[in-house]
Amino acid sequence: MNLDRTHDPARRSWVSSANGHSEFPLQNLPYGVFQRGSGVHVGVAIGDMILDLTVLENLGRIKVGDVPVFQAGELNAFMARGPADWHRLRVVLSDLLDVASAPPEEEILFEQTAARMNMPFYVRSFTDFYASRAHAANVGAMFRGAENALMPNWLHLPVGYNGRASGVVVSGTAVRRPTGQVLQQGSTTPVYAPTMRLDMEVELGAVVGTATEGGGTLTPTQADEAIFGYVLLNDWSARDLQLWEYQPLGPFLSKAFATTISPWVVTRDALAPFRTPIPPKEHALLPYLASDEPLGFDIAMEASLVPGAGAPLSLCQTNAKHLYYAPGQMLAHLASSGAPICTGDLLGSGTISGPDDSSLGSLLEITENGTQPLRFPDGQERAFLEDGDQISITGRCTGPYSIGFGSCDGAIQAAHLP
Amino acid sequence: MNLDRTHDPARRSWVSSANGHSEFPLQNLPYGVFQRGSGVHVGVAIGDMILDLTVLENLGRIKVGDVPVFQAGELNAFMARGPADWHRLRVVLSDLLDVASAPPEEEILFEQTAARMNMPFYVRSFTDFYASRAHAANVGAMFRGAENALMPNWLHLPVGYNGRASGVVVSGTAVRRPTGQVLQQGSTTPVYAPTMRLDMEVELGAVVGTATEGGGTLTPTQADEAIFGYVLLNDWSARDLQLWEYQPLGPFLSKAFATTISPWVVTRDALAPFRTPIPPKEHALLPYLASDEPLGFDIAMEASLVPGAGAPLSLCQTNAKHLYYAPGQMLAHLASSGAPICTGDLLGSGTISGPDDSSLGSLLEITENGTQPLRFPDGQERAFLEDGDQISITGRCTGPYSIGFGSCDGAIQAAHLP
Repeated sequence: MNLDRTHDPARRSWVSSANGHSEFPLQNLPYGVFQRGSGVHVGVAIGDMILDLTVLENLGRIKVGDVPVFQAGELNAFMARGPADWHRLRVVLSDLLDVASAPPEEEILFEQTAARMNMPFYVRSFTDFYASRAHAANVGAMFRGAENALMPNWLHLPVGYNGRASGVVVSGTAVRRPTGQVLQQGSTTPVYAPTMRLDMEVELGAVVGTATEGGGTLTPTQADEAIFGYVLLNDWSARDLQLWEYQPLGPFLSKAFATTISPWVVTRDALAPFRTPIPPKEHALLPYLASDEPLGFDIAMEASLVPGAGAPLSLCQTNAKHLYYAPGQMLAHLASSGAPICTGDLLGSGTISGPDDSSLGSLLEITENGTQPLRFPDGQERAFLEDGDQISITGRCTGPYSIGFGSCDGAIQAAHLP
Repeated sequence: MNLDRTHDPARRSWVSSANGHSEFPLQNLPYGVFQRGSGVHVGVAIGDMILDLTVLENLGRIKVGDVPVFQAGELNAFMARGPADWHRLRVVLSDLLDVASAPPEEEILFEQTAARMNMPFYVRSFTDFYASRAHAANVGAMFRGAENALMPNWLHLPVGYNGRASGVVVSGTAVRRPTGQVLQQGSTTPVYAPTMRLDMEVELGAVVGTATEGGGTLTPTQADEAIFGYVLLNDWSARDLQLWEYQPLGPFLSKAFATTISPWVVTRDALAPFRTPIPPKEHALLPYLASDEPLGFDIAMEASLVPGAGAPLSLCQTNAKHLYYAPGQMLAHLASSGAPICTGDLLGSGTISGPDDSSLGSLLEITENGTQPLRFPDGQERAFLEDGDQISITGRCTGPYSIGFGSCDGAIQAAHLP
């Protein structure tokens, strides 16, 4: 991907809060959807403000193709337009917000703190991968023993499963503790009870823009180009439900109650300066999956636990560059058998764990399956999440300039009584 | 469920083809979506005709609630209305088509043979279960050995996984042979090749009408009532892809390329006379899943293989009554952890295999994993499906009257070259 003037680190905006340490400088321009009065509008984050694209399009100040794309309260119509239109609008918005332009007279800016963010796009399907080698090895060892930790297929393909698109919620949505079947230790008969092992998973989510037609396949580079942008993703997991239910058809209700994403879709275009090579492969990949392109991303991610009472505790610092398979490879694999790829398909990376103890992306790994509880400075302990706990995931890219993803937050509500 | 005059076996229609041996007598009235000129209309099958509900609603001859529900080319708006409205319209249509009524003057009938059927509803999610004990035991033994055939969880919950809603297609849609990673015998390195073990699975599909709100749970009886109707379903499966990819997260691309459903949704209401008790349970189910109600269905199902050249071969005669878990129990389980249930969710039963050799619902079982090929009278053999083969599944209920499901057909096209 070429860098152009939209990536120029020297450019500044007339929205003064965008210049400085904002996650949303002029070089970022992520897309989101927010409530404005009784309407649901599409906007772009700039500093601590939102540029209202729904209003701009209504005013005729921006135009993408022949029909409006920002009037339906979701990004899908715009995402379906494809990379050329995405880039054209990025240039227009970058110029419009540049300090060299005059601030427009209309009411096109809205304060982020006053905005209630909605789901940015309609999720057509949610597929979750398992693409961090450290995570797959750590969890595999706990569930199946060290000798069966990494299955033989893992080094040849990005292992994944289909999740539940209707369970994806936007940051800030409360997460109800799920109830389900668990097999208590020493028993052979399950009980139906609220999960006692509620976990988070730190993931990167890739949002598909352009659809395939008629079961067409994609090279990893083509797949990378079909991805509109990226969000932070928390794949909430009930470990006790998972252990009991997952054989032989995979995780099901243990991950179906909620998946949280951050509200701003950071575009592929904005992430161009933060590309990294994919980690070297132990076995050569088959040609349909192999790539020499730098399809990875250097995105520093951090998860924190904010207890109902007391100060937050940092849980991990990890990085998307640890992923063994890049998002473009995940999507190329998904398309490889003829599965239709649709606008709004969401691909989770799987928990991103790095090589060391401070970079583990799930409590399952951090607390060694609950045996080594976390200790807060005030004496509180956590093996898994308690009611009232909030998990916040943040992401940041640092290079010629620095951009952020905003925050992916969810707080745990008590279970409904069975 | 009460039987009422819409179930009266003595009633006849002024559509004469509905009286006799039609799958679609006055007592059935299944819903489908068809192409009419440049429009996409909702209709009800009656004999060899389709009653056009989109036109009837436009004419003001039928009315469901305050806003039109049959103008969007899919059943979802009507399905979301709930059981009271479903039943009210059934009574209206039953009376309208009764021989005692005068045939209307308008052009509201359309010949089925002239109709191109579309997907009857927008599939919000597709969840596939594994609820036939014989099938789970047969396949488990082949994939994991006899001692691990039935996992410990199987007798306590309906095991399932999420499929790909965007891959569900209507009967008559060609199915492209998928290409994917397979591990050839004796090798430790996979190749990317067209599947050599393409299979069908005979299933019943349950179509959710009414959604849950806010992660609400459902009893099996409530879940049964939330199901609008049923279709025949063929869960195409690439067994070689499946064997290599499915551990530890379950089937993925091996079942993502296509799932075929029959075009007519036979309503829960129409199936009322064909209820059966659920098979007795080896272990008592937990209260959220247990039911003494007759939530099963006596639906005789048959699959045939129609080769590109030569006469069709019947593959199996099975019955939905063999399912260990009823559709209402599958949906109750899906809702039990707080997963949202949406209008248009489709639940596959899993392959329905019965206790004897003539009632096996997949080629994997029929040919004993390909080792005992089928023999056609003309000498052709099949271990798995070849290009040009068509699978047709039919379903029929026989009791005070007899109704059918129409046909669920798909023919195999050659793979795209990798």
